[in-house]
Amino acid sequence: MMREVKRFVDLTADETSDLWFTAKKVGSQLERFHSATSLTFAIQDGPQAGQTVPHVHIHIIPRKGGDFEKNDEIYDAIDEKEKELKQKLDLDKERSDRSMEEMAQEADEYRLLFL
Amino acid sequence: MMREVKRFVDLTADETSDLWFTAKKVGSQLERFHSATSLTFAIQDGPQAGQTVPHVHIHIIPRKGGDFEKNDEIYDAIDEKEKELKQKLDLDKERSDRSMEEMAQEADEYRLLFL
Repeated sequence: MMREVKRFVDLTADETSDLWFTAKKVGSQLERFHSATSLTFAIQDGPQAGQTVPHVHIHIIPRKGGDFEKNDEIYDAIDEKEKELKQKLDLDKERSDRSMEEMAQEADEYRLLFL
Repeated sequence: MMREVKRFVDLTADETSDLWFTAKKVGSQLERFHSATSLTFAIQDGPQAGQTVPHVHIHIIPRKGGDFEKNDEIYDAIDEKEKELKQKLDLDKERSDRSMEEMAQEADEYRLLFL
């Protein structure tokens, strides 16, 4: 059974643990895959925090020195992504929108990290 | 025994769960206390993500409509706080630095929420 949970507080204890255990694994793999050195984890928990997709989800962004001109631009990027699926991350030197095909290919690459 | 953990990935499973169960409780109480409607949760996990205090910690910010001119200014505020203990949050109409005395008083008020 799948249920949609809007706010972080509404997750059960097991769901909370599972969510963050998963985020930890995903973060570690993405950091290595992108040869990054840090990670940004963020939950926009509710509409007034910038959440537009109405279920709990974590933004996980591999970070490198100098990846954004100002460190906080990462959050503009998160918001853009949240609003319009835009990507300003240049970890892989892309600054334009990705096509569905490119995103599917990226998802395939990431999938291999978790076999 | 207390140990300092620099990166999120280095927390044990129990520590990860405890950290987020605690964050959930703190967030709920702060949201109610400040009559807010959303929460921002963020971990700057490593120096390249803006972390300057070298141990895992979560930023939890109660959010209201219009609390920041641009939603993402919240992250500038987090970074300022991280760097200089500055506060731009206007949830309680304060925009200047707090004195140690004011911060201690605020901590006392918050402590009452968790008895």
